[in-house]
Amino acid sequence: MSQIVITFPDGAQRSYNAGVSPMEIAQSISEGLARNVLSAKVNDQVVDANTPITTDSTLSLLTWNDHEGKQTYWHSSAHLLAEALEALYPGIKLAIGPPIDRGFYYDIDFGDMRFTSDDFEKVENKMRELAKSNNSFVRKSVSKSEAIQYFTEKGDPYKLELIQDLEDGQITFYTQGNFTDLCRGPHIPHTGHIKSIKLLNTAGAYWRGDEKNKQLTRIYGITFPKKSELDEYLELLEEAKKRDHRKLGKELEIYTFDDDVGPGLPLWLPNGGVIIEQMEAYAKKIEKEAGYFRVKSPHIARESMYIKSGHLPYYKDSMFPPMEIDGVNYYLKAMNCPHHHKIFAATPKSYRDLPIRFAEYGTCYRYEQSGELFGLMRVRSLQMNDAHIYCTEEQFESEFQAVNALYLKHFEKFGIEKYVMRFSKHDPAKLGQKYIDMPELWLKTESMVRKVLDKMGVNYVEVEDEAAFYGPKIDIQVYSVIGKEFTLATNQVDFAQAERFDLSYTSENNEKIRPIIIHRAPLSTHERFIGFLLEHYAGNFPVWLAPKQAIVLPISDKYADYAEEVGKYLKISDIRASVDHRSEKAGKKIRDAEVAKIPYMIIVGEKEQESQTVSVRMHGGTDLGSMEIQQLAERILNESKL
Amino acid sequence: MSQIVITFPDGAQRSYNAGVSPMEIAQSISEGLARNVLSAKVNDQVVDANTPITTDSTLSLLTWNDHEGKQTYWHSSAHLLAEALEALYPGIKLAIGPPIDRGFYYDIDFGDMRFTSDDFEKVENKMRELAKSNNSFVRKSVSKSEAIQYFTEKGDPYKLELIQDLEDGQITFYTQGNFTDLCRGPHIPHTGHIKSIKLLNTAGAYWRGDEKNKQLTRIYGITFPKKSELDEYLELLEEAKKRDHRKLGKELEIYTFDDDVGPGLPLWLPNGGVIIEQMEAYAKKIEKEAGYFRVKSPHIARESMYIKSGHLPYYKDSMFPPMEIDGVNYYLKAMNCPHHHKIFAATPKSYRDLPIRFAEYGTCYRYEQSGELFGLMRVRSLQMNDAHIYCTEEQFESEFQAVNALYLKHFEKFGIEKYVMRFSKHDPAKLGQKYIDMPELWLKTESMVRKVLDKMGVNYVEVEDEAAFYGPKIDIQVYSVIGKEFTLATNQVDFAQAERFDLSYTSENNEKIRPIIIHRAPLSTHERFIGFLLEHYAGNFPVWLAPKQAIVLPISDKYADYAEEVGKYLKISDIRASVDHRSEKAGKKIRDAEVAKIPYMIIVGEKEQESQTVSVRMHGGTDLGSMEIQQLAERILNESKL
Repeated sequence: MSQIVITFPDGAQRSYNAGVSPMEIAQSISEGLARNVLSAKVNDQVVDANTPITTDSTLSLLTWNDHEGKQTYWHSSAHLLAEALEALYPGIKLAIGPPIDRGFYYDIDFGDMRFTSDDFEKVENKMRELAKSNNSFVRKSVSKSEAIQYFTEKGDPYKLELIQDLEDGQITFYTQGNFTDLCRGPHIPHTGHIKSIKLLNTAGAYWRGDEKNKQLTRIYGITFPKKSELDEYLELLEEAKKRDHRKLGKELEIYTFDDDVGPGLPLWLPNGGVIIEQMEAYAKKIEKEAGYFRVKSPHIARESMYIKSGHLPYYKDSMFPPMEIDGVNYYLKAMNCPHHHKIFAATPKSYRDLPIRFAEYGTCYRYEQSGELFGLMRVRSLQMNDAHIYCTEEQFESEFQAVNALYLKHFEKFGIEKYVMRFSKHDPAKLGQKYIDMPELWLKTESMVRKVLDKMGVNYVEVEDEAAFYGPKIDIQVYSVIGKEFTLATNQVDFAQAERFDLSYTSENNEKIRPIIIHRAPLSTHERFIGFLLEHYAGNFPVWLAPKQAIVLPISDKYADYAEEVGKYLKISDIRASVDHRSEKAGKKIRDAEVAKIPYMIIVGEKEQESQTVSVRMHGGTDLGSMEIQQLAERILNESKL
Repeated sequence: MSQIVITFPDGAQRSYNAGVSPMEIAQSISEGLARNVLSAKVNDQVVDANTPITTDSTLSLLTWNDHEGKQTYWHSSAHLLAEALEALYPGIKLAIGPPIDRGFYYDIDFGDMRFTSDDFEKVENKMRELAKSNNSFVRKSVSKSEAIQYFTEKGDPYKLELIQDLEDGQITFYTQGNFTDLCRGPHIPHTGHIKSIKLLNTAGAYWRGDEKNKQLTRIYGITFPKKSELDEYLELLEEAKKRDHRKLGKELEIYTFDDDVGPGLPLWLPNGGVIIEQMEAYAKKIEKEAGYFRVKSPHIARESMYIKSGHLPYYKDSMFPPMEIDGVNYYLKAMNCPHHHKIFAATPKSYRDLPIRFAEYGTCYRYEQSGELFGLMRVRSLQMNDAHIYCTEEQFESEFQAVNALYLKHFEKFGIEKYVMRFSKHDPAKLGQKYIDMPELWLKTESMVRKVLDKMGVNYVEVEDEAAFYGPKIDIQVYSVIGKEFTLATNQVDFAQAERFDLSYTSENNEKIRPIIIHRAPLSTHERFIGFLLEHYAGNFPVWLAPKQAIVLPISDKYADYAEEVGKYLKISDIRASVDHRSEKAGKKIRDAEVAKIPYMIIVGEKEQESQTVSVRMHGGTDLGSMEIQQLAERILNESKL
């Protein structure tokens, strides 16, 4: 038997007989490791752990600690769910059942039956029972005609429709126990790995996502190898529910939607207005210090603008439809760049003027399907912390570094401790097709980008062949304090738009040179960022952002005048304060202020009035005791600094 | 002969024989007065001075000091122009020749001949010659057939077309010298009144304003009784040209238009961006002090919103056309009110919450015909200093007074010394038709409005039957320092929208009550207000608004480092400053800074570097001498206060 060389992730190499499986290799290393192997990555392809390896290969053994390991695990869990459902409800029709970011789902046609969360326990129990059987997942290649025959006999129209799109040689079945599914795989070795099982919720889902098709029942679930992990996850889920920005946004009167305005178009209530004003004041301060100019552009432009930019026709589906005026089509802007380029072009530029940085909290409009809309996270109007930097090649590195420094500054300001920057690069083989054909500039800027990221010690990963057409880009993902991931912003280098808009500056030698453009929006959009902050802070905004910073609570009507005096002092000190003059008990007033998440509760009664002081309680209960009103005002103003 | 009683504007009454003319009455008072009478207002109708008065009447004798007197004078001047043109260019066809705000024009069909400003002098001379003949303007009633016969013989197709729309009994001719025109009148007694004559410019004008018709030559002119007045006017015209906001807007790089963006949609360059930011910071400060909440709304809404508000279908022509999304029409907002009403409605309101004041610098879009667009004065995108106040009937007076106080505060801030408020009221006879049928509320609010205006001592005029459908309104006209009039803003009371949007608050007795709404936009739109300010300040913005506040001018490269140091100090002091590092002579640098209208020029050379001071020159030439940089920074910051 011939020998093959297996290269492990750490670079170590070992020889094996050709045909060895990843599981066998794991066993050759340690039985303990083998027990944890869920699937394997052979030459960058994820496969079943028992797939024979026939040539020299790289190999990663995938366990629960790997993203792909979890995905395999949850994919197999979806099959287990289907097996349990079929056992309990014979005759149901199965559609698709993929893993998702956290857990899995299966779309089921229950026919006339109504399946609800009341049925979860029964299904979970069945899943546990089946899991304990330690049934192996067995892969089998089948011909198209065999596949059709199998599902025709079983009477499953959805699978038959899926098979239509497949060709002979690419169809495989996976079987565990008595259940067989059309599936590309891979799967875990056997069902015994699946220990802790929880079905989470159901939702309606159209077959193939098309409203014209039948609505199926989507069942979401999650599984873990250990009970403690499930418990932890459910706790997090509970916490995330409390922090849901849609729930908090309503309770704290931050924003609202209205049928006459339209879906995906938030209206910002006064509390949201304060947050927006503070965010913009902060952004403007930082950007002013960083040498940005503020510009202002209309929300519409003629069709010719977007043909020039290349957004039309390619981006058309994401734009609002045109309005015809005087025989010309106008579009709502889906991005601010073309307008900024026009502002750049409006006056002649010399190398002395560069770098030029145009900033604008411009509102863009993008069409999202109504089913895709989600609170503030997926909307149709986007107030973007946008800016475009026009610089020379020589200036690129320092400009790019300054942009990154800005990101880090923001992370600190908002207490974002975990983030990842995905640095997407070009593929030299695709220059002139997928990527603009400027090979040297690609290499040069990518190397400058890497240099900056390394020098700054930021957390990043490099991704091949995922750059934008016009230059490398960095996508920024941040994690809220409860570990939820948000994709906030993109930071892009652009070699193409300057050409399209004929932008240039005059060099020292009187030549016309195209500037490099950096697109950046570190604070994302108000919609997405404030949505993130609502969850991140659980609605407890820091003092500088809090819609109301302080509330004065007289413990009875007798102290109304003194309370009013205190309130006025705070207000003229530029503190967002009010007085609760309701004839309620102090306890009730405090409870309501807690619910409203107001950072400072200022309690005034006889003692305070006599000594001309205030008693201060922080949101959450911390008692700051008695202090002079000036002292409190200074404290709040200090915490209000941008 | 029967006697009639004539009542004069001061209330005095005198008896005359029936059939007496205003001119005869003037002569009965004084020959000097009679010499100045141009026309007369008899029972609110302006007529020729020689029109017989047959019944008891009120009478105002109109002279050059009256608006209507000037209008008669310029109307007659248009006839004089036509007479001169016909004398010089036989065969030309005359269209129409009305008076305008300042002066008059006549639209002429010159056939194949090209008439240009080179021909002005010849025509002016002819006009002077004809004026000196002291020809009377003679009115004659003619039948339609006579009128048609006259102009058929004369061969004037435009007058014939005008006659088509007239009926027997309403057609009159006016003749002076050899010239006869179809005209309703009135006219001045004789051409001798017209002393100082100036033709100003020509422009193309379509017959009846319709592009499908022939383009005629419009000749603009102005006339005065005294040469000194003409000289003064021409000087003002020269000054206005220098202050033209379009010219200054370009020179000072405030804004630009771009073909790919579209007409009427200004792009604000960095200098304009500073002015906008400062205007908004100022507005927000004032509005915060006045208890306004800031809200934020999208720029679009569904059709149903504007049907509810009543803007559709009536206002449709002024709105941009709809965009159809998911089968529903969306419109760009032409006003912010409906969005604000929705924000009001989003949470329940009690009488304790009122008054509620929602402010937003919301950008609205209105369709104006491209021919109507004019610089920043007539645009399609409007960033409005908008706010809506929701209050109880009891609160209305104080709220309305507060709004007026805000106007006066702004006038002071911007050095607006002359203004008029036009207080438009309803007509009780038209309640339920032209005006919403709430008779008591009309009387009550109008009386409150009047009381507030009187109490505050503001300059206003009352206008009958010009209110909005939903309540009384005040239009504010301001005058720039050179006396040019701008209609800036409207301040409206609204009884109707609360009903349409089902807005209410809960009263102390737990009843649902509709709030009264006040619409206000004292700072107008950025477009119009900044356009006004450009002309008002002649581009010399006060320090707090100036895009660049200071420029450091090293007198040679030797002092570049010190200049840079000074510039940095100013910048970190939050002053908009830069350094002119060009290798130009000091004189050239000063001249360029003067052209850029930068308030502070900071000159640094050997003396300044040695003594660590700066020499300061103000825009316009005032020399402030030498001072310490801290001292200068304090001075500038002091002048930068909002």
